Amino acid sequence: MIDIRPIGYVIGLLLVILGAAMLLPMIMDIYDQNGHWPAFVQSAVLTVLCGGLMALACSNAVGEGLSIRQTFLLTTAVWLMLPIFGALPFWFGETEARFVDAVFESMSGLTTTGATVFGHLETLPSGLLLWRALLQWMGGIGVIVVAMVFLPELRVGGMQIFRSEGFDTLGKILPRAGEIASRVSVIYIGLTAACALTYLALGMAPFDALTHSMTTLATGGFANYDGSFGVFPAGIEYAGVFFMLLAALPFVRYVQMMGGSAQPLLRDSQVRLFFGIVATFVLMITIWQMVQSGRGGEAAFRKSLFNVTSIMTGTGYASENYMVWGSFPVTIIFFLGLIGGCAGSTACSIKVFRYQLLFASIRAQVRAIHSPSGLFTARYEGRPVGDDVLSSVTSFFVMFIVSLGALAVLLGTTGLDFTTSVSGAAAALGNIGPGLGHLIGPAGSFAPLNDAAKWMLSAGMLIGRLELLVVYALFTVGFWRD
Amino acid sequence: MIDIRPIGYVIGLLLVILGAAMLLPMIMDIYDQNGHWPAFVQSAVLTVLCGGLMALACSNAVGEGLSIRQTFLLTTAVWLMLPIFGALPFWFGETEARFVDAVFESMSGLTTTGATVFGHLETLPSGLLLWRALLQWMGGIGVIVVAMVFLPELRVGGMQIFRSEGFDTLGKILPRAGEIASRVSVIYIGLTAACALTYLALGMAPFDALTHSMTTLATGGFANYDGSFGVFPAGIEYAGVFFMLLAALPFVRYVQMMGGSAQPLLRDSQVRLFFGIVATFVLMITIWQMVQSGRGGEAAFRKSLFNVTSIMTGTGYASENYMVWGSFPVTIIFFLGLIGGCAGSTACSIKVFRYQLLFASIRAQVRAIHSPSGLFTARYEGRPVGDDVLSSVTSFFVMFIVSLGALAVLLGTTGLDFTTSVSGAAAALGNIGPGLGHLIGPAGSFAPLNDAAKWMLSAGMLIGRLELLVVYALFTVGFWRD
Ligand SMILES: [K+]
Ligand SMILES: [K+]
Repeated sequence: MIDIRPIGYVIGLLLVILGAAMLLPMIMDIYDQNGHWPAFVQSAVLTVLCGGLMALACSNAVGEGLSIRQTFLLTTAVWLMLPIFGALPFWFGETEARFVDAVFESMSGLTTTGATVFGHLETLPSGLLLWRALLQWMGGIGVIVVAMVFLPELRVGGMQIFRSEGFDTLGKILPRAGEIASRVSVIYIGLTAACALTYLALGMAPFDALTHSMTTLATGGFANYDGSFGVFPAGIEYAGVFFMLLAALPFVRYVQMMGGSAQPLLRDSQVRLFFGIVATFVLMITIWQMVQSGRGGEAAFRKSLFNVTSIMTGTGYASENYMVWGSFPVTIIFFLGLIGGCAGSTACSIKVFRYQLLFASIRAQVRAIHSPSGLFTARYEGRPVGDDVLSSVTSFFVMFIVSLGALAVLLGTTGLDFTTSVSGAAAALGNIGPGLGHLIGPAGSFAPLNDAAKWMLSAGMLIGRLELLVVYALFTVGFWRD
Repeated sequence: MIDIRPIGYVIGLLLVILGAAMLLPMIMDIYDQNGHWPAFVQSAVLTVLCGGLMALACSNAVGEGLSIRQTFLLTTAVWLMLPIFGALPFWFGETEARFVDAVFESMSGLTTTGATVFGHLETLPSGLLLWRALLQWMGGIGVIVVAMVFLPELRVGGMQIFRSEGFDTLGKILPRAGEIASRVSVIYIGLTAACALTYLALGMAPFDALTHSMTTLATGGFANYDGSFGVFPAGIEYAGVFFMLLAALPFVRYVQMMGGSAQPLLRDSQVRLFFGIVATFVLMITIWQMVQSGRGGEAAFRKSLFNVTSIMTGTGYASENYMVWGSFPVTIIFFLGLIGGCAGSTACSIKVFRYQLLFASIRAQVRAIHSPSGLFTARYEGRPVGDDVLSSVTSFFVMFIVSLGALAVLLGTTGLDFTTSVSGAAAALGNIGPGLGHLIGPAGSFAPLNDAAKWMLSAGMLIGRLELLVVYALFTVGFWRD
């Protein structure tokens, strides 16, 4: 049997933090005099109480460190329990969100997916808008810690390639996670503040600047308006692009920069490839728009830049309904979402470095075909890559594509058409946000979907956020065997 | 420099055979008195002349065996040159097919894809209908030989796992290819004859029985009617299912059965999984149809059985416009096409055994996570699988998915919508035939697409049929370097 007490302890503590965080939107609602604040009080009391009791009950098992299996279980349990309690403020109170909607929204927040079941966002109380932003912001820091500490340790999805980045000498996993979290938090808070001030300076209202800076740095994509970033002027669009790009870069580089031991950011090959892909497709879609719709150069460039960046980083804001751009941009946008940002950032999906590793492996194989007697090794940033890394990257890729197919088929059983099913599955598993089509596309919302589809998509977000294998491993017989 | 003379010699001989085969539809057209026969005479003369001259010019290099690079080049060159000459009968004569249409149809034939640019098939001269069937039938035997001899030798797509199936003791590759081709031909001709006689006995007209048996055994899918198999009675649908399934099984098992050393067909794990998948989805779609449209049990079962089998085997016949079955079956059908049949058959796409190997690799990896000290190897049919096989299977999968995305995006630039682009790319790369949607779906044809899209799809068929790497390897610098 796996000793679940250390897991309960950590989750208990995190729930207390989550409950405490609910006081911020409560204050907002009191200040706003919209009468919605009691929902946050109820939610906070319930969450802190449950979390505190759980932590107390499990406190006698602290300090023993975590086994690999406990680490797997902890990671999944955190991303299952926190969204449930995070859903309470949506469920209680006056929004009349049903439980499934509340969990969907909360899961979409903490996994930084950004798909929403709320139409008419303008009518939501400010507290709830702030809570949505907070969920994404906390989820963002959470996934960075998971990506920098837990996934390399668990050797999942090839993340072990980032093990030697200078953090594995810090001792046991939980203290290390705390250490990383506090170091990253400084950067994360700093960047969020810079983003908020920039938005403010460019004319965004203070409340909008606060919430949108949070959802930008989390590459989350929750907005306060149904029109998303389409309601803001051009300058704010450019600022959004700048900070979305920063949020999709590997945070380990920022930490190294602060420590003085910076391997320059732009010598990181995944960063260069990431920028190269963004630039290529922005250029192509800009030209397409100018030719097809005769749009002016600046507007075509800006709309292409913003929406390509938004999808490629997995943020999911839209500054326009790109479904109307026509065949080519729509198909591009779908596949850009399957590329994703850099490892160790808040960005999600398959990620650039995995494609680099996969292509390096294919290249080595082609060379071996040319010269059957030679021995060729895949390399990443000049260093040879171990077979365990390659096989875990390819496993990730295969699981991602097969899961995408399975989720799309399951969504099809709920009555959704091909485009909605496939793009919805990709949007959830890749934590992107919007899908394609008039229903769940950039101009729609997930509200009209039936309950089954919402549960499936919520599960997809969780599975995708934890890089699939962390969740799937729990469903194997061997995991629970002694 | 690669000595291309042995390649020219083989292609020359194959062109002579192709040209000779054009006399069959010529006879058909003369018998039919439709006046179309001169097109075949012109095509045959041109093809035999070019082929004969090529073979003569290169005959001084025979008997030296082929290097690995020559084998790569030969395989691709065969599937590039034969479709061009096979296109001549469509191009010449009265059908007024343009060159791009003729090449598309010929490529679709020889790669056993079955996508057609001819609407109103009923109006085509019998000779051309026979030529379409012959192209697929010859293409079918060709891909079996490629799959049994060339791909294992080239270590492409994990096919080397089938190297030890008892054929690699036969000496040099070209004599071996001839040996295999003659052994397989006996089975292939026998099965085709059995299929034709069955169709005939069930009431199909003699000409239809001949051509449809050819396109069934090739899992090709060219039909003589716009309604495909929808024009035939229930009994013929069941017979079609039976022979499509036989055509998608590994032909090496049939050869072994003939030689008396048969490892029983049904103990082959890919065969069992293949049948399992077909049965599962037939059942699901049958129930779906009964519930959704209140269709009778037998009709629902038959339509599900036929169309699921047709797509899963990559044949591409339709006995109904399954686009109207609604969300779930349509999405299923798309992903079934990405599974495909068994290795070493005329079936195409990713194929069942690759999924088995990929999942075996993931399983080994999950076990290693559970017990970090243990050493776990992926197994196929109980035997450990080498790392080179696994990496070449995963390379295949990655290349297939990335090529699918790239081709879909390219198709998008020609103005096709998301569903048409993505399903068209899959239909071409997977050599399936029909895509989704009203345009290229089971009730449509590829005729309305513009030239650029037709060229792209033709290239996709070629690349998919040769398991991607055979073609891609030619585009690497190292291939042409000494
Ligand atoms: K997102
Ligand atoms: K086919």
